[in-house]
Amino acid sequence: MNSPVKVTPSPNRGRPGYSREDVIDAAVREFNQRGYEATSMGHVSSVLGISKSALYHHISSKEEILKYAVTRAQDALDGVVDKAEASDASPGEKVRALIYGSIEVLCADQESVTLLLRLRGNSELEMRALQRRREFTRRVIPLIDAAQASGEIRSDLDTGVLTRLMFGTVNSVIEWYETGGRLSSDEIARHAVVLLFNGAAQS
Amino acid sequence: MNSPVKVTPSPNRGRPGYSREDVIDAAVREFNQRGYEATSMGHVSSVLGISKSALYHHISSKEEILKYAVTRAQDALDGVVDKAEASDASPGEKVRALIYGSIEVLCADQESVTLLLRLRGNSELEMRALQRRREFTRRVIPLIDAAQASGEIRSDLDTGVLTRLMFGTVNSVIEWYETGGRLSSDEIARHAVVLLFNGAAQS
Repeated sequence: MNSPVKVTPSPNRGRPGYSREDVIDAAVREFNQRGYEATSMGHVSSVLGISKSALYHHISSKEEILKYAVTRAQDALDGVVDKAEASDASPGEKVRALIYGSIEVLCADQESVTLLLRLRGNSELEMRALQRRREFTRRVIPLIDAAQASGEIRSDLDTGVLTRLMFGTVNSVIEWYETGGRLSSDEIARHAVVLLFNGAAQS
Repeated sequence: MNSPVKVTPSPNRGRPGYSREDVIDAAVREFNQRGYEATSMGHVSSVLGISKSALYHHISSKEEILKYAVTRAQDALDGVVDKAEASDASPGEKVRALIYGSIEVLCADQESVTLLLRLRGNSELEMRALQRRREFTRRVIPLIDAAQASGEIRSDLDTGVLTRLMFGTVNSVIEWYETGGRLSSDEIARHAVVLLFNGAAQS
């Protein structure tokens, strides 16, 4: 178990019992628990019960982990918008699909999306990720605008505020969703679509 | 300006130009920007352009600042629930008042509420604040439950999920609200109440 890492031939082969993905997932959980800045590679290696050199076998830096996790989360979220844009559903249906699909993504990769949502722009990498988050919003606003124009979404609400409130609801699920909990991600996503489209008031 | 702090007679008198509140507000902004763990008292003093000893004249520790800001935010949020519970409005009106009032609080003290919402439970103090957040939710659920029982809020949605989604929407405003921005906190709070009660769909 403690043999030197150098002898392992493939950079992706990993330590016995841990894949590169396992290492990244454990590191991202630590970042979310302690804060990215406050987490050292030493913390990550001790959580995994491996040496620091074994850890560096899988991954070259904290920043590489951050980039990998955040890119994975943003690719998945952008995929939801790509699909909505390309679909021939009505504008209102596209917005429903966006809300449903975004909740599915954040439940499926909860730790990476949590990391993404907590970025504050403390480095070049974080600034680029925040820029990409703003581009996501810039792509979503016209979809909501189109649904207001088609008469499927009420037009007495400000488009920008409506977009931010809707995606605020979506993102908030990350705070309390539990994998294997009482409600599945599908049920939660459907609750959110009903609440945001039809409202809580008894009609 | 650089005279020794010891000679100042009253612990609340403060340095010329800075009150204790100013120091706390600046520190909380730094905590939110850098992360609480990653911020030192040295960072806070250099942001204010004062010496560390001048800073310690106002405040004894980072933890004291955290406690002060988080307590202020939680007192204000609990005040909104107190008022709803004590009011003789209908259950549905109480829930509307809760949503409206919570958004007003988080816009009025955005930095302290941000700090509160980002706590991860890394100390005894943080654990107590998280416990108090859970008590807030435990007080809100019966109010939503009562509005479902009175027929003002639809009963085909799970009460717990509905509560979390509604307060997720409320809390998300903290991420983008700008004091003095295009929309006032009153306008944003009214948008949220309309969206959450009546839904985005054109009826």
